[in-house]
Amino acid sequence: MIEGKKVLVVSAHAADYVWRSGGTIAKYIKHGAEVHVIVLSFGVRGESNDLWKKDGATYESVKAERFAETQAAAKILGIEHIEFWDLPDYPMAPALNEETRIRLVKKIREVAPNIIITHDKNGEDILNPDHNAVSRFVFECSIQANSNGVRIEGTRTTKQMRLFGFEPHQTELSKFVPNQLIDISEVYEQKVEAMKCFKAQKHLIEYYTQRAFLRGNHLRRISGNQTYQYGESFSSFFPVAGEELV
Amino acid sequence: MIEGKKVLVVSAHAADYVWRSGGTIAKYIKHGAEVHVIVLSFGVRGESNDLWKKDGATYESVKAERFAETQAAAKILGIEHIEFWDLPDYPMAPALNEETRIRLVKKIREVAPNIIITHDKNGEDILNPDHNAVSRFVFECSIQANSNGVRIEGTRTTKQMRLFGFEPHQTELSKFVPNQLIDISEVYEQKVEAMKCFKAQKHLIEYYTQRAFLRGNHLRRISGNQTYQYGESFSSFFPVAGEELV
Amino acid sequence: MIEGKKVLVVSAHAADYVWRSGGTIAKYIKHGAEVHVIVLSFGVRGESNDLWKKDGATYESVKAERFAETQAAAKILGIEHIEFWDLPDYPMAPALNEETRIRLVKKIREVAPNIIITHDKNGEDILNPDHNAVSRFVFECSIQANSNGVRIEGTRTTKQMRLFGFEPHQTELSKFVPNQLIDISEVYEQKVEAMKCFKAQKHLIEYYTQRAFLRGNHLRRISGNQTYQYGESFSSFFPVAGEELV
Amino acid sequence: MIEGKKVLVVSAHAADYVWRSGGTIAKYIKHGAEVHVIVLSFGVRGESNDLWKKDGATYESVKAERFAETQAAAKILGIEHIEFWDLPDYPMAPALNEETRIRLVKKIREVAPNIIITHDKNGEDILNPDHNAVSRFVFECSIQANSNGVRIEGTRTTKQMRLFGFEPHQTELSKFVPNQLIDISEVYEQKVEAMKCFKAQKHLIEYYTQRAFLRGNHLRRISGNQTYQYGESFSSFFPVAGEELV
Amino acid sequence: MIEGKKVLVVSAHAADYVWRSGGTIAKYIKHGAEVHVIVLSFGVRGESNDLWKKDGATYESVKAERFAETQAAAKILGIEHIEFWDLPDYPMAPALNEETRIRLVKKIREVAPNIIITHDKNGEDILNPDHNAVSRFVFECSIQANSNGVRIEGTRTTKQMRLFGFEPHQTELSKFVPNQLIDISEVYEQKVEAMKCFKAQKHLIEYYTQRAFLRGNHLRRISGNQTYQYGESFSSFFPVAGEELV
Amino acid sequence: MIEGKKVLVVSAHAADYVWRSGGTIAKYIKHGAEVHVIVLSFGVRGESNDLWKKDGATYESVKAERFAETQAAAKILGIEHIEFWDLPDYPMAPALNEETRIRLVKKIREVAPNIIITHDKNGEDILNPDHNAVSRFVFECSIQANSNGVRIEGTRTTKQMRLFGFEPHQTELSKFVPNQLIDISEVYEQKVEAMKCFKAQKHLIEYYTQRAFLRGNHLRRISGNQTYQYGESFSSFFPVAGEELV
Repeated sequence: MIEGKKVLVVSAHAADYVWRSGGTIAKYIKHGAEVHVIVLSFGVRGESNDLWKKDGATYESVKAERFAETQAAAKILGIEHIEFWDLPDYPMAPALNEETRIRLVKKIREVAPNIIITHDKNGEDILNPDHNAVSRFVFECSIQANSNGVRIEGTRTTKQMRLFGFEPHQTELSKFVPNQLIDISEVYEQKVEAMKCFKAQKHLIEYYTQRAFLRGNHLRRISGNQTYQYGESFSSFFPVAGEELV
Repeated sequence: MIEGKKVLVVSAHAADYVWRSGGTIAKYIKHGAEVHVIVLSFGVRGESNDLWKKDGATYESVKAERFAETQAAAKILGIEHIEFWDLPDYPMAPALNEETRIRLVKKIREVAPNIIITHDKNGEDILNPDHNAVSRFVFECSIQANSNGVRIEGTRTTKQMRLFGFEPHQTELSKFVPNQLIDISEVYEQKVEAMKCFKAQKHLIEYYTQRAFLRGNHLRRISGNQTYQYGESFSSFFPVAGEELV
Repeated sequence: MIEGKKVLVVSAHAADYVWRSGGTIAKYIKHGAEVHVIVLSFGVRGESNDLWKKDGATYESVKAERFAETQAAAKILGIEHIEFWDLPDYPMAPALNEETRIRLVKKIREVAPNIIITHDKNGEDILNPDHNAVSRFVFECSIQANSNGVRIEGTRTTKQMRLFGFEPHQTELSKFVPNQLIDISEVYEQKVEAMKCFKAQKHLIEYYTQRAFLRGNHLRRISGNQTYQYGESFSSFFPVAGEELV
Repeated sequence: MIEGKKVLVVSAHAADYVWRSGGTIAKYIKHGAEVHVIVLSFGVRGESNDLWKKDGATYESVKAERFAETQAAAKILGIEHIEFWDLPDYPMAPALNEETRIRLVKKIREVAPNIIITHDKNGEDILNPDHNAVSRFVFECSIQANSNGVRIEGTRTTKQMRLFGFEPHQTELSKFVPNQLIDISEVYEQKVEAMKCFKAQKHLIEYYTQRAFLRGNHLRRISGNQTYQYGESFSSFFPVAGEELV
Repeated sequence: MIEGKKVLVVSAHAADYVWRSGGTIAKYIKHGAEVHVIVLSFGVRGESNDLWKKDGATYESVKAERFAETQAAAKILGIEHIEFWDLPDYPMAPALNEETRIRLVKKIREVAPNIIITHDKNGEDILNPDHNAVSRFVFECSIQANSNGVRIEGTRTTKQMRLFGFEPHQTELSKFVPNQLIDISEVYEQKVEAMKCFKAQKHLIEYYTQRAFLRGNHLRRISGNQTYQYGESFSSFFPVAGEELV
Repeated sequence: MIEGKKVLVVSAHAADYVWRSGGTIAKYIKHGAEVHVIVLSFGVRGESNDLWKKDGATYESVKAERFAETQAAAKILGIEHIEFWDLPDYPMAPALNEETRIRLVKKIREVAPNIIITHDKNGEDILNPDHNAVSRFVFECSIQANSNGVRIEGTRTTKQMRLFGFEPHQTELSKFVPNQLIDISEVYEQKVEAMKCFKAQKHLIEYYTQRAFLRGNHLRRISGNQTYQYGESFSSFFPVAGEELV
């Protein structure tokens, strides 16, 4: 049951969480989950190629534009809890240091999520090393947050939560294997609207629109449920562990 | 929800379904599922080493003993629907012919299961080629059962069901990766009693008892639910496809 | 250079070669290649679900419809050399016997192709066992065709040709890894028209239209060539072996 | 032959070497090997969850308890050469710096081991990033120790030794594949006694007791030697290279 | 210890056992092992390309030549026990039928080998499907030979033996991973002489000569033993299971 | 077409580019490509074992010798553009810092290569961690060089180039899979001469001479082109993306 679930989404760049999990986020919020999003960087260096083509573009102007876009998208998806950590990107790894580590462990303990969604851990993004670095980093911080002996004042140890990975841009080339296909039909229009906030990336809007259609096809084929029209897919860091076969 | 689910278990030999899924079967039955079991062979040639050590053992005497044992185990697990196809084993592949194929497609359509449980498809049993052959065979028959164009008089095309694989005896050596861990604590004693029916295989009873304990440890660790004590694990032929992340 | 190349496409069912390689076929023909297509079966049992829903559908009526559709598609793609072997499908493996083997070895030697395109060998089609069986079969026949000692009257041993695998329907779930991405922009409309011949499978037409768009995105991203709009992808049975890095 | 062999065990936390290789260590010592153990950290943060539940637990109190426990265990196993480097854990990676690197290269050269045993390199511990970091670190230090050009005053270049990896806690989920199964029957009681020193981790004692039983089953099945009762398993960083097939 | 060991080598074609294990065979015989070789086919169709180029070559003439060559090679290697089963090849799979199966199970029980060496099971020969078929077949027969319930008059159940796989021609392309590297320096000249019996395949003689040199380099590098000059490599079907780490 | 291509080779140590790509470099230069080589370190610590055996060897004396050798080799291969960055090795990872990163991004933009050749990214060098570190580093710098938002004064963003990986020393043990086999017959003698500059490593000269022969065998076998005599192999970081199947 979605209602009452707490979800923490950690996104390397400003738009990752929208392309890759915007539908699932909107659906969870619609059904009563509490969703928190951390945007680690604005992707000024690595994911704003088109914005830099404008005359007079500067680091600050690009950042401002990305900030505005991602806020608008978050609003459309219904996200109330979103933080922008404004780390540098390309490369992001050097910024995933001791300070950031403690900050994220604290945040995880503060939210105490049932679910963490971030970049895929099982595969390897073929064109975006930041995504790989963030995936490992979030995973390691989650382990620490769950460990009694990692003492940070004012925090409480979390219980083992579930972790899921975004589908990357080049799925098979990044060795991503979908482990969970989620129907997002009821919030599909919302996701499309949110994607449209990223005006300089029209080709990506079409790209992720079509991917949602393909995943919908797979959802119907595998579940036998013909009402599923659009989908998103995720990898799972752990096996399903529970009461029955799903 | 387990209640009302229809489950078809296809077991290569007489005891496979007990060692590998006895707890899950008992639990499903207890909670109102309809469970059907097909025992393809009695494992007279391949899995009755100890029975053959008795003086005067013959194919018929071994078979009779295996038959009695597996019936007793099935009864303890609460299984009402069980069939013994009495195929030869070691090797079983030659018996998985056109006739057996049609028989199994018919059976699948007759049961119309939500879930099929059989031998693991993703890995490769390191010491039991029969298991690999059965896994492929059941998978192929399920695809045919679901196909409108496979016309068999008196049958109705099934909808895509979910398929799960047994954990093999040598887990990692058989490249098995647990995809679903199922808590069987409430029926654990029942499973132990069922296993005890196979009197000539005492070492296996202890083996699978201890594995249930280990899987219980993994269940607690991964779910954070400390009430889980004993478990069974399965691979999944397909990704999870549904309404929410699990 | 495409001109003068001889290509043999072996398709398990009536539409596989269109969905999966229709653009590449049309492009090769347009640029002067000689393309031969073998359609092993009409997919009456396994890939005609929608046709069977018509009142009074029979094996013969479905087959006739598939035959008409695939001929129409072949014509649009410009294919002059096409054969229909009318093997049974679902399962197809039993029909890939000694007789079919000799027939295919002969055909390979008759065409003497530079390139064979068939179903993917490296992965495993998650929902279509026929495709896996055909892939292995074509591969083995190619090895035999190339072997001096496989004496078949009236044939000449072929030289080692290159083999490529179709992208399956569920790409990542079938462990397919694209090894070659081919731009089909100039013949894209032709492919769309050819796909439309399969009237009962509207959802597949949209599906493969969108996949061509996604592959176009990957082509641009990986090659840096912004004129590529639509693509198809293939696996390669062998490494590239030649004069320079490609 | 074990006699005269020199073995260096590098354990990330205070109890890893006991759970994972206590039997093999005891056996090697019993038969005349010289075994050195380095305990990199006390696992105060990452592997002392239960100790932190005591009222008034502090970093120092937990550490003292872990220290006492692991010393007692080492004594039972017969280990005479053991060092505690007291590095921080969770995360340990930042402490595996230049200083620690030189210290370990020196130590390897001082011991000049025939065998190094540490955490598994081939897989990836699904729940313990420290283990992965230590595995890579030990491997890299061993390469440097063997390299003539890595000049450290007062040390002599070592010859290529063999490296083996511990079986992790969640074997298959960590992609561990047992490459060497070692019979520990004759020292099994000793290992059990050593494990009992870790009083706060009763469930782990039972866990590793049962795993020894399972590995014993595999040992008998694979070797055909029915005297093997209990075992431990290891991965191998390198192929076997020698005089005959083993 | 090699002395007293019983080894069964099963070779798909007439020369496979020489190229791939000639050194290890000669070494085992030299040190007192009893080595049996079964040559399943003469490779007339699949591995005699050059012989077929002679004027007037016929199936019988090629076979006679292969027979003479392989007998000469066996003699040089010191092999006393060799059988030629004269199965057809390319494809060989159809000949690996019920009759051949019983014949091989009988033979395994008659020899009661400690070691079986045949084609690699873990990888997949990229250019020779016969090798893959034989590997699976020998493995399955060994399992049956070891099974008490597989009753064949006049035979005694064998104990679990060890199985090893040949290194194929295109090592990495066939996904072969060397698990055991064996020093063959002392019998290297003997192997070279044996290879020279296959007069029509000069390029292969040089090929396998150079591979022995490369494997010698790996042997020295991995073992640290500088006396190793030439080697052969094998995969292992099972983990090492024994008394100590090797 | 090779003519006019710009190639950047990044070599971890002084001789890597010669052993692993000397033939391809010489061929590209001969046919009109512009080849730039960066030698990151002289391999004084990690790859100069034999030089350190000389009496009185010092860091400076070894470095001078390596410098002289690699310059001589570069000259024989016809390389006009070569830089020596003189980073420390064993380990090299600490030197692949922010400063080196900017330096390499700048260099990539300055050269604007069509092709980058460096250490293999897909596998993992079993005995040389420096190679793995360099592979990841070069890959990440190439991504940054291609990104519009990575602003470095005086540089222009590059277009996506192709990346290829060297074949490592222990091919299969390092999980290397050859993706491209390149015929180097016409420059083979040149490569042999260049290798001979590394006087202290005679065994490697023979080793890489023989490997070229083996790769020549594979080239002929896979391409059917019998003129190929010697080869080198590379992995590919990306799929082929272009106009036709190759």
